[in-house]
Amino acid sequence: MAGTAMDRGARKIDPNSDVAIAASVTPQPIEEVGARLGLDPQVLFRYGHIKAKIALEAVRPAEAQADGKLILVTAINPTPAGEGKTTTTVGLGDALARIGKKVAIALREPSLGPVFGSKGGATGGGRAQIIPMQDINLHFTGDFHAISAAHNLLAAAIDNHIYWGNALDIDARRINWRRVVDLNDRALRHVTVGLGGPPNGFPREDGFDITVASEVMAIFCLARSFEDLEERLGRMVVAQTRARQPITAAQLKVTGSMVALLRDAFQPNLVQTLEGTPALVHGGPFANIAHGCNSVVATRTALGLADYVVTEAGFGADLGAEKFLDIKCRQGEIAPSAVVIVATVRALKMHGGIAQKDLGPSNPAAVAAGAGNLVRHIENMKSYGLPVVVAINRFTSDTPTEIEAIEKACAAVGAEVHLCNHWAEGSAGAVGLAEAVVRLADGPSDFKVLYHDDLPLVQKIETIARRIYRAGSVAFDAGALKKLADFEGMGYGDLPVCMAKTQYSFSADPGLRGTPSGFVLPVRDVRLSAGAGFVVALCGDVMTMPGLPSHPAAENIYVDETGFIAGLS
Amino acid sequence: MAGTAMDRGARKIDPNSDVAIAASVTPQPIEEVGARLGLDPQVLFRYGHIKAKIALEAVRPAEAQADGKLILVTAINPTPAGEGKTTTTVGLGDALARIGKKVAIALREPSLGPVFGSKGGATGGGRAQIIPMQDINLHFTGDFHAISAAHNLLAAAIDNHIYWGNALDIDARRINWRRVVDLNDRALRHVTVGLGGPPNGFPREDGFDITVASEVMAIFCLARSFEDLEERLGRMVVAQTRARQPITAAQLKVTGSMVALLRDAFQPNLVQTLEGTPALVHGGPFANIAHGCNSVVATRTALGLADYVVTEAGFGADLGAEKFLDIKCRQGEIAPSAVVIVATVRALKMHGGIAQKDLGPSNPAAVAAGAGNLVRHIENMKSYGLPVVVAINRFTSDTPTEIEAIEKACAAVGAEVHLCNHWAEGSAGAVGLAEAVVRLADGPSDFKVLYHDDLPLVQKIETIARRIYRAGSVAFDAGALKKLADFEGMGYGDLPVCMAKTQYSFSADPGLRGTPSGFVLPVRDVRLSAGAGFVVALCGDVMTMPGLPSHPAAENIYVDETGFIAGLS
Repeated sequence: MAGTAMDRGARKIDPNSDVAIAASVTPQPIEEVGARLGLDPQVLFRYGHIKAKIALEAVRPAEAQADGKLILVTAINPTPAGEGKTTTTVGLGDALARIGKKVAIALREPSLGPVFGSKGGATGGGRAQIIPMQDINLHFTGDFHAISAAHNLLAAAIDNHIYWGNALDIDARRINWRRVVDLNDRALRHVTVGLGGPPNGFPREDGFDITVASEVMAIFCLARSFEDLEERLGRMVVAQTRARQPITAAQLKVTGSMVALLRDAFQPNLVQTLEGTPALVHGGPFANIAHGCNSVVATRTALGLADYVVTEAGFGADLGAEKFLDIKCRQGEIAPSAVVIVATVRALKMHGGIAQKDLGPSNPAAVAAGAGNLVRHIENMKSYGLPVVVAINRFTSDTPTEIEAIEKACAAVGAEVHLCNHWAEGSAGAVGLAEAVVRLADGPSDFKVLYHDDLPLVQKIETIARRIYRAGSVAFDAGALKKLADFEGMGYGDLPVCMAKTQYSFSADPGLRGTPSGFVLPVRDVRLSAGAGFVVALCGDVMTMPGLPSHPAAENIYVDETGFIAGLS
Repeated sequence: MAGTAMDRGARKIDPNSDVAIAASVTPQPIEEVGARLGLDPQVLFRYGHIKAKIALEAVRPAEAQADGKLILVTAINPTPAGEGKTTTTVGLGDALARIGKKVAIALREPSLGPVFGSKGGATGGGRAQIIPMQDINLHFTGDFHAISAAHNLLAAAIDNHIYWGNALDIDARRINWRRVVDLNDRALRHVTVGLGGPPNGFPREDGFDITVASEVMAIFCLARSFEDLEERLGRMVVAQTRARQPITAAQLKVTGSMVALLRDAFQPNLVQTLEGTPALVHGGPFANIAHGCNSVVATRTALGLADYVVTEAGFGADLGAEKFLDIKCRQGEIAPSAVVIVATVRALKMHGGIAQKDLGPSNPAAVAAGAGNLVRHIENMKSYGLPVVVAINRFTSDTPTEIEAIEKACAAVGAEVHLCNHWAEGSAGAVGLAEAVVRLADGPSDFKVLYHDDLPLVQKIETIARRIYRAGSVAFDAGALKKLADFEGMGYGDLPVCMAKTQYSFSADPGLRGTPSGFVLPVRDVRLSAGAGFVVALCGDVMTMPGLPSHPAAENIYVDETGFIAGLS
């Protein structure tokens, strides 16, 4: 018979890979990890020996308290040279533990789709990883599957409602609730459903997004209780009637079932770093259509359990940190006590105009030029009233004169720079950073969001564009302006704005590295996420369903005879 | 704002519902349940306090041993009156424990789709249930989500292969690998994908099945090891080239990733009955397109751990037990020691020609007429060389003369009848049945499959049709005959046959209750499941994606303030 499994002899594990480093460490029983946060084993809903969900009975008092100090890790605009934001988050958490602090890390869960695409996972790297990396990168505790099921149940309910008579008068041409799958599958971006005749319903155009792009995911990460969760789900606008009136999810009557599907998932997951530091890994909304941060429930729970909580925001600080501060902190009633901005010498050289192939030789002038990108992010974070420290994630190729160029630029805006080596050394490589962070976090801060709720939506977008991005002006498409007016008319004018913009530049042009300014920021379309509680402003095309590359990572992953999952990187 | 959550005051839990009965029992810690099977807590990969997967290190020696006695619970052809097969499986298991036997129950996992459709779940009922019923009926330990992801990864890989140049020359019109979702969603039965222009691939027809209909599910339930799993996945025929040559999954190179996705799922789940009897609940292939039994790994593991294992087959004995015996037992190298056939007085009356609305009054004549259906199943099971006992699942409306009619009919073919009341009483209601089962299972049996591997495929189908269904002849569509010849030419002639026929009749006509014979069985089409290792014979339309009713059960399910999931029934 054709096509038996490929030759297993060809399968070898690279001993320097993240998966091999992770496998070389013996994890601590999750009860010991939980005990570090004062959690009784009985409140750990274990998934095997080294993963757990924290039971509601422990979550509720902790998240109500939420009195720890929150450290936000963000970064310069990403480049192909790499920055190491998650690695720094983990290394800093471990270093805080090393210097005797009661600490927890709060991170997003990775999406399954990209694991099989071009990268292996999102659990840090080297000696700064969270484990079990295979589990976290694959199904973990099933949260994303629960979100997919809840999302798709609502989609089925919409078509089912139309099938059985369409009492709500849903306009099949104006259903904006797509379906989701947690894979990279470009063939599903645009589809027609309901084909094949009367038993299968009414044909209509539809499409699939990746699960992390679902509004259910965004809601999951912002809701505070089951009641809040169900109310937010119910507020989602999923379609319009032929008379152009909004249809909400509540009208389809399945929000109770959606919450039932999310019941277990809603409890934060507890895992550990390679050094045994507790990590709450929970939720993961797409950073380019939603706010891109781990769940409010997990962050608040961590703040209730630990004295210091290290968390990160998606993308660079202009996009990720802005949304963290203006959406998550606003809705979640939290505030950071300090911000860490991660950069690398190599990435700053790229911001200074050097091509990736030319990053080898020392080039302090290019670093100095590129440091402008870092400096602007420092200024932005300070404008929120937050103390800032810079973490340089070291490469062996970095030279003293290059480091000096960064220190000089940062000193000019009053930011300390710390060289970090946690990738190679674990916590020992980030002690200086940890000490600086404690000093800043224990000192004064005066966090304020960038704009008030009652500012009109157009002005919220303009405020972000001018003050954070340094745009000269904003060019709204006419349709976008009309929709914003409609949203205000419907009572959604008090929502914050969730920017959907390239992460590679302050501008909407991914090719503009460094410090572009005075540009025109295009706002081509806007969308209402009434349940999540924000209005999305689209500054260009937004990809909500990635595709696979010609040789996807899926071709390298396998399970060996012992049951070990290899090939993730 | 429009559409807030529905009034929670209207939500009440029925105290006589299965969910309320289940909630009234305090479950035992899963370690205690495992200890009953001699399992060390360290080999239990716990999901919370009352669910676990049994680790491979314990599964492997147990499934290699597999020396317990296997009891198969099957039934008459189902009617709207209900039979209670799962309830009897659970009640018998509890009763075997009650009389001092070391016992395990082995059941399928329910599908998520129907939970939100017209029924609440598939975990038994009354005092004969497995728990935690909400968990088992919703995500349980994530097995079906893992199967969905593995299935859909392969689908994405097919379209991705075509997108990047189609080196295998896949004919986009001849891709038979559809996508899956674990929901009832009729709008997805027939779709077109790849629309929207070049970045999204090539438009083609496609469709979605419910997850349990996936060949990955069938393989999952028949494979014995990761190597076997990957080889079977690799053998699946997913498409044809333009030259009509088969394309196998192995050629898409993602079978290693598929096994990685199934890594944890492949370990059997351990839960308990309301009385604390261990139950291995694992796998759940669709009974009308696949073989419809729980996994071979779970059944063999249970046989290695317990002295008696009670399991069930889907649908009535003509369809479910035949496939259990001729496919699962053949491939899994197991054999039952006794068969229990479940019937109810009410259902036999329906087989005797009485309409559902007229089931109230006592009608021994109708029972006697309908008992022919039961008698034929007894004869069939005996033809496999197996001892048979009949379990009558009692209703308070049953009369002594009706019971007598059943006993008389069964005595004529040498089968004991036991009246069971486990629904109301738990194990105490099935002690007589348990004692009879032990007597039979400990006595002689001489199991032989119905046909040999080397019988031509056409004759295998004819053998099942004539000997089990009592058809007069089989009418093959010309296309089906040609495909069967093709399958034999490709080297698949030695596979067993998986019948896809209505469960409501021995014939292919669901309206023909009782004992039809001499009819023509139509075989309209055949399909190759090369990885699962069987050829599917389709005797009529087969539904692989159910729809939701006009008022789906999803409208009644919700989570209360304490986190309790209510509304499942």
